[in-house]
Amino acid sequence: MIVEVVAVGTELLLGQIVNSNAAAIGARLAESGMDCHFQQVVGDNLGRLSSAIRDAMDRADAIVLTGGIGPTRDDLTREAICEATGRAMHTDGAYAATLRQRWATMGAEMPLSNLKQAEYPEGAEMLPNPRGTAPGLALEHEGVLIFALPGVPPEMELLLDGHVLPRLRDVAGGEGVLVSRVLRTWGLGESAVGELLDDLFDASSNPSVAFLASAGETKVRITAKGRTVEAAELLIGPVEAEIRSRLGSVVFAVDGDTIESVLHRLLRERGWTLGTAESITAGSVAAQITSRPGSSDIFRGSIVAYHTDLKRDLLDVDDLSAGVVSEATAIAMAEGAIGRLGVDVAVALTGAAGPDPLEHEPGTVVISVVTPEDGKARTFRFPGDRERVRAFATNRALHLCRLAVSGIWWGKR
Amino acid sequence: MIVEVVAVGTELLLGQIVNSNAAAIGARLAESGMDCHFQQVVGDNLGRLSSAIRDAMDRADAIVLTGGIGPTRDDLTREAICEATGRAMHTDGAYAATLRQRWATMGAEMPLSNLKQAEYPEGAEMLPNPRGTAPGLALEHEGVLIFALPGVPPEMELLLDGHVLPRLRDVAGGEGVLVSRVLRTWGLGESAVGELLDDLFDASSNPSVAFLASAGETKVRITAKGRTVEAAELLIGPVEAEIRSRLGSVVFAVDGDTIESVLHRLLRERGWTLGTAESITAGSVAAQITSRPGSSDIFRGSIVAYHTDLKRDLLDVDDLSAGVVSEATAIAMAEGAIGRLGVDVAVALTGAAGPDPLEHEPGTVVISVVTPEDGKARTFRFPGDRERVRAFATNRALHLCRLAVSGIWWGKR
Repeated sequence: MIVEVVAVGTELLLGQIVNSNAAAIGARLAESGMDCHFQQVVGDNLGRLSSAIRDAMDRADAIVLTGGIGPTRDDLTREAICEATGRAMHTDGAYAATLRQRWATMGAEMPLSNLKQAEYPEGAEMLPNPRGTAPGLALEHEGVLIFALPGVPPEMELLLDGHVLPRLRDVAGGEGVLVSRVLRTWGLGESAVGELLDDLFDASSNPSVAFLASAGETKVRITAKGRTVEAAELLIGPVEAEIRSRLGSVVFAVDGDTIESVLHRLLRERGWTLGTAESITAGSVAAQITSRPGSSDIFRGSIVAYHTDLKRDLLDVDDLSAGVVSEATAIAMAEGAIGRLGVDVAVALTGAAGPDPLEHEPGTVVISVVTPEDGKARTFRFPGDRERVRAFATNRALHLCRLAVSGIWWGKR
Repeated sequence: MIVEVVAVGTELLLGQIVNSNAAAIGARLAESGMDCHFQQVVGDNLGRLSSAIRDAMDRADAIVLTGGIGPTRDDLTREAICEATGRAMHTDGAYAATLRQRWATMGAEMPLSNLKQAEYPEGAEMLPNPRGTAPGLALEHEGVLIFALPGVPPEMELLLDGHVLPRLRDVAGGEGVLVSRVLRTWGLGESAVGELLDDLFDASSNPSVAFLASAGETKVRITAKGRTVEAAELLIGPVEAEIRSRLGSVVFAVDGDTIESVLHRLLRERGWTLGTAESITAGSVAAQITSRPGSSDIFRGSIVAYHTDLKRDLLDVDDLSAGVVSEATAIAMAEGAIGRLGVDVAVALTGAAGPDPLEHEPGTVVISVVTPEDGKARTFRFPGDRERVRAFATNRALHLCRLAVSGIWWGKR
């Protein structure tokens, strides 16, 4: 099934924002076994936008548009779909009333332009958008599925995962169904995973094996087509087993599992609670751990000791003779957090994010984990700018914590 | 002059890398006064790549291709230009010899595939690439200028600035420059901002006015075309003044400024330090404040009191009779943070992120700010899921802090 992505917005053409939506949609389509041959970016211009849609209709089975469905006058995606398909525009009276009511609840009068968001091309279905006011749209026109999603990334992603991908998978299954399993690996580079599985890629047709590198991890996707879900899963089983036997503990999660969900489960299994002591990451690790519901069962709190004084005052690190960025300090921070937060396990991070080189080269980060069983620290040197160093450090801390809680740990170096 | 950008590479379609080249080229074209109507992304496929080039030739005066000119088998941009233009491929004997010599100097034999980099479509000029081995290409075909640049960003940028933009400006013959100013607003919805500025949007041609909604804020972009940067800025001036007079303190930042940079500057101006006491956001506010360099001047630390015990033990909130999610508790948390962290200003957040309704409706968040001048709390009900509620709360906390530090504050309700 061939899907084309069309991102809408003059700000993309002007380079004021980077087209992260196209990358996100591309990655999710690939994970779902869809083919994507072209992406387009087009500005807020009715004629060019409808021409882009027509081009996509000529060469794809489905089109995912993102952007241009808000309430302002330069939001033209709905109108362009009408123009490209020759359909009339209708208004959903019930949704218009909902919009009016929403504004009334806030004690405000609704700007009339908002009513645009209740419009839809004839025959289109509105996709509810719980994160915003502009619903998405789904339409089938002459055998081509057309989806219009918001441009705001969290809204786009919700509708992509909740509506677009399930429908595409249904259609792609044809008479049968398409089932994918994604094994998420951590700790080996993309090329190393690729080499270990090279013969499986070559041989792959049904199931097919593909791999995708993304922020710090490599995903291996196994996709099978079968008459039923069960039949497809029977095809996936042996290939998954082979891959797991080759990659071992490098596989840390399956499908929708994330490092956070895996860590939550491991902590629950051991009956341990967790806390963090953060300097360089300033709460990012705590924020990520608690991004999932049910965090209060396993997470108690965090002390962000950004200023050195607070490492002493709030984390009881009395001896800083090894340096603020050192394995001894990182261990002492974790031990301090265990005492102050009343937790079983603590992760601590200290380092230099840059860009100014102080005592330490920017990118130097020490991460420690202390559990009831043991305590270890490790020093890293992450590449990139401040934001990237902090993101690497946060991700690494979560994985080191996972390894420590599961009792595997890691070498001192 | 209309220029189309074509980025080449299957890894872009798969979302393995974000198309930052297209954004960089788009921004530099706009700065140089060029118009860009479409961007395309196409994979490493000869037929589709040449079809993309033909489409671009039909609708643009110039095409900037990036990617696909390296030495491997899936580098197909040269071949696709030949196919799209009907030109033959030639080899530059002198450059082939240079390549061979470069390998010999390293004491290695050159893999034959590298000779691809000495090939060029008939009539094309090679653009020397001092940062890599693949030279760029420049070709005029039936009145359309075609440039092929490397995909590696630093190599691409060097050839873009050194060759492509000067030639485009020469051909365009002083059509002038395009200058944009972005006013970032907070506190009014996109549609409300749109209505306040509706007539400016209608009247807009030079300068033009456009809107862009993104996470919690609306950006207003004013773009002017002039013979020089100064001339364009003279056109922007009066429109910017009019927009600022209509929107008032709703405009909080200009161009590259962010809520973090504005907050840092305000705190520095007052000579105050900041800390946070977080429950529902679990460190997100602290992490965002410290996302910028130089944070240690104004930020000391944070206490994440996720578990209720810690609000008492680490933030000295002795009286929880008003409830964990209450304005009294939020104020007490901020006051506790000021004492424990030794800061002048503290922001505190407590709430229910969901999805499980405990005592409070999910989405209920209380935010307090205490400064040396005053202390206030406010209760919000944010829509959406857990992730969205936390993102809203983090953004709101930063803005309430900005208002408090600037002495504006906000109403009790």
